Amino acid sequence: MKLLEERILKDGVLKDGGILKVDSFLNHQMDIGLLQEIGKEFRRLFPENITRILTIEASGIGIATIAAQYFDNIPVVFAKKSMSKNLDGDLLTSKVISYTKGLEFDIFVEKKFLSPDDNILIIDDFLANGQALNGLIDLVNGSGANLIGCGIVIEKGFQDGGQIIRDKGVHLESLAIVEDPKDGKLCFRKQ
Amino acid sequence: MKLLEERILKDGVLKDGGILKVDSFLNHQMDIGLLQEIGKEFRRLFPENITRILTIEASGIGIATIAAQYFDNIPVVFAKKSMSKNLDGDLLTSKVISYTKGLEFDIFVEKKFLSPDDNILIIDDFLANGQALNGLIDLVNGSGANLIGCGIVIEKGFQDGGQIIRDKGVHLESLAIVEDPKDGKLCFRKQ
Repeated sequence: MKLLEERILKDGVLKDGGILKVDSFLNHQMDIGLLQEIGKEFRRLFPENITRILTIEASGIGIATIAAQYFDNIPVVFAKKSMSKNLDGDLLTSKVISYTKGLEFDIFVEKKFLSPDDNILIIDDFLANGQALNGLIDLVNGSGANLIGCGIVIEKGFQDGGQIIRDKGVHLESLAIVEDPKDGKLCFRKQ
Repeated sequence: MKLLEERILKDGVLKDGGILKVDSFLNHQMDIGLLQEIGKEFRRLFPENITRILTIEASGIGIATIAAQYFDNIPVVFAKKSMSKNLDGDLLTSKVISYTKGLEFDIFVEKKFLSPDDNILIIDDFLANGQALNGLIDLVNGSGANLIGCGIVIEKGFQDGGQIIRDKGVHLESLAIVEDPKDGKLCFRKQ
């Protein structure tokens, strides 16, 4: 997605250890106009009859809610990363390791929000090692719902998450795939 | 907001300890059409020249991003509840106690996203004891930005957060104010 790649080049900041900061427009401050274009692009890439969008707190939520508007306002469900008194129904759970936070945690979704009749699109901001996305796919599989595909805003093409997910036969679309930033320069995989 | 009150009566679930579950349409699964109406109502209540919306992860994000569309697509910034490698700039911080999660935690926002030139609207899903909202107001005050007001979807009128915030002279608007659910019955404060 050209608009997104241009924005990453303009406002993305490359840090040590392959960390790409896009916090000025995607995952701390959010550019709503850009999220709308991202939402339209996900609709173009997933024209199927989708009944629910699944994402994960926190950064995925803004992207998924804006995108849902281009899918006839279907409901958005977000997986939670910590228990609270508000989670008391039957839960679907999966384990995720976060490398940026340096810890392992469980993710949860109440079972009633993913039904076997559902056609699910998973949306998230980043795909690197695929931990979070694998966890979300686990939740969908556990619910018996039909996984239509996964829409990712930025994939790190130099980490193995994308390959692992595609090798499972999952329809994965990443709007920008960042290649290994050798010499500290950003470039994108041609799609 | 009548549509919201009707929805709370229809799909809200009252639990022991005054906990109101609205997870089927607001803070686990999100009804996008309802969020759009909520966004329009916030715009009606805050017609001022607002330059940024501030919210807090996780449930506030979907509400704030949809609402921002009715404020000329101004940027949405969300305060974070945990440190990560991605937070490395100058930070504004405040302390918050969560009663539903039973712990105290810091909230953060990168200083560069709230400037003294900004007119800020704070948006969040719930107001009970006012801890999260007080933390967000702290962040705005720490940045030197101008706080226009706070838009809350559901206020628990029988907890003291609303009173505390209003006593500070903050323009606080809650779209539904739930009164003390005696006999397990929900009713709303007339506004």
